[in-house]
Amino acid sequence: MDAYEVNEKEIDYNKVIAEFGASLITDELARKINHPLVPSLFFAHRDLDKIIDQEFAIVSGRGPSRYMHLGHLLLFSFVRDLQKKFKAFTFIPFSDDEKLLARNIGYEQVLLMDYENLLDLLALGFDLKKTEFMFDLVNMKQEVYNLAIKISSKLTLSTVKSALGFEPSQSIGIHFYPAIQAAHILYPTASFDLPVLVPIGIDQDVFVKLTRDVASSLGLKKPSDIMSKFLPGLTGGKMSSSKPETAIYTTDSYEEVKRKIWNAFTGGRATAKEQREKGGNPEVCVVNKYLKIFFGIDNSEACRRGEILCGECKKMLVEKLWEMLSKHQKEREKAKKKAEQAAPELVEIVEKIRK
Amino acid sequence: MDAYEVNEKEIDYNKVIAEFGASLITDELARKINHPLVPSLFFAHRDLDKIIDQEFAIVSGRGPSRYMHLGHLLLFSFVRDLQKKFKAFTFIPFSDDEKLLARNIGYEQVLLMDYENLLDLLALGFDLKKTEFMFDLVNMKQEVYNLAIKISSKLTLSTVKSALGFEPSQSIGIHFYPAIQAAHILYPTASFDLPVLVPIGIDQDVFVKLTRDVASSLGLKKPSDIMSKFLPGLTGGKMSSSKPETAIYTTDSYEEVKRKIWNAFTGGRATAKEQREKGGNPEVCVVNKYLKIFFGIDNSEACRRGEILCGECKKMLVEKLWEMLSKHQKEREKAKKKAEQAAPELVEIVEKIRK
Repeated sequence: MDAYEVNEKEIDYNKVIAEFGASLITDELARKINHPLVPSLFFAHRDLDKIIDQEFAIVSGRGPSRYMHLGHLLLFSFVRDLQKKFKAFTFIPFSDDEKLLARNIGYEQVLLMDYENLLDLLALGFDLKKTEFMFDLVNMKQEVYNLAIKISSKLTLSTVKSALGFEPSQSIGIHFYPAIQAAHILYPTASFDLPVLVPIGIDQDVFVKLTRDVASSLGLKKPSDIMSKFLPGLTGGKMSSSKPETAIYTTDSYEEVKRKIWNAFTGGRATAKEQREKGGNPEVCVVNKYLKIFFGIDNSEACRRGEILCGECKKMLVEKLWEMLSKHQKEREKAKKKAEQAAPELVEIVEKIRK
Repeated sequence: MDAYEVNEKEIDYNKVIAEFGASLITDELARKINHPLVPSLFFAHRDLDKIIDQEFAIVSGRGPSRYMHLGHLLLFSFVRDLQKKFKAFTFIPFSDDEKLLARNIGYEQVLLMDYENLLDLLALGFDLKKTEFMFDLVNMKQEVYNLAIKISSKLTLSTVKSALGFEPSQSIGIHFYPAIQAAHILYPTASFDLPVLVPIGIDQDVFVKLTRDVASSLGLKKPSDIMSKFLPGLTGGKMSSSKPETAIYTTDSYEEVKRKIWNAFTGGRATAKEQREKGGNPEVCVVNKYLKIFFGIDNSEACRRGEILCGECKKMLVEKLWEMLSKHQKEREKAKKKAEQAAPELVEIVEKIRK
């Protein structure tokens, strides 16, 4: 499975879990986490049961992009909730360097994306006393660099190639990058002797697995992770920060939210008449999924019975989303002041770039 | 040719130069440099003629080792002389990270080597106002890291493999390292818009060549280099920081110098009688070479005529070397104070390690 491109429809989660050697979240673990998205969305883990009763750190990286979308918000809201519940030191490294390596994006552009994404995270209300942001191209910590070097000495080219499938025509930077990512993950363990939890989309688990293997060879405790299922894109495929029709962006206007939801993929029939008679198919409906995941509203039964039409669900979702998003956008505006405290070096550079 | 293991005896310098596409130092260039080791030892270059009449920076890296030997001192004395003559900003990066990657040496051990080697360099009297020391594992500059990332995005795995011949069983760190080395070299160009001169042993030219190629793709001026021939080891092979019999170390005692020179490889005959009758072979004599290179003393003719015996040359060399070395050791002792100014972070860490 290629970590970079996964289509939700192809995934049988139970099979994947078996193949990965991960575990499903048990009732007991779910009770301890006590979060509405567990286990409905965050459904599997590696060794979380081993650290949940002690002090641990959370690492949740961000590959900066022009826009953050609802899927990102959901993940980082979950991280924020975990931080609060477990009083966990939280490390949020921005892999802006990986963007230079893997995409054809300019240096200044990447730093502006760092800043825009930071605003979204700050808007979520992380506890800044317990949160550390690092931007690889701005304030790479010496400890993280040294850790990346040590890790890179333990990972052979053939190991990385077989785990991630790179080609010789790709850059040495791409081949090296897993070492930096592993260093991000292992930083709290190496520097503060804290076990680490990584909340992560299932497609990223391969990096955690690689990091777990290398942690052993460095004599460090293996990181744990908690994995989420895919949140489907509005058009039924994958959400993308570069395909506006697939996702609601955190900066979208009411009109944009409305248009995107109105064009979203549903399980509706060809006509209202037909739907009233035969009922819709809520299993495949993105609108239905969003209502459930984001707002705990389940219209499935009413849909199946033909008692509710797509237009009604869409309208409901637009209003709910906009309520959430307009609040987020206000917090995002306020976050511009917090940014100076949370990431002074980045703010300084971004101000220079904008002049 | 493998950059990591070259045997002097196999080298036909003219052929190498032709193969490398480098140029011999012309009389005009030698006059401008005006140094006793040019062109006798530093005999070839790439594009030095293009920058010699303008302001340029010097980059001379150090892969730290337990001991520095006379060959290292000679190179860095040359760097110091160039710095003085051309008032050149000089960047001296310590590739301590590469030691972790390529050898099985512990982290603290490497930092102690950084420190010991720094003392030798400071003893040579670099102009600290114009010199910057960087230790990758201690004070890696963000600019250098960012440059390494950019460079690593332009170097494909196959390019690096064909230039340096790595194997898939080697670490991803080893494969990435050329990007860091190139970043060292290009730092003054990228950060201060200064063209760069790299004084270098001919076996290291391949890294400069790789850096020149990648500089173009980043829109940066290609670095120039000036290449030295090999200085033979005392036993006739290569000098090594880990084989005491092959080299005089900067910290050797008088007794050690004496013993090593007394065991050195010469062009002498089996007996004194035979040598007086038939003469010796100064061409292959290491003692003769050292007298010439370090002290400008040429006993070749007298040797050929049988007028001087190996013992006399050795005695002469021991006395001359000790005069030089004891002076260096005094300066090296004084350098412990300078180190705090030149490398405060390193000194702080080393003090912690030693406690």
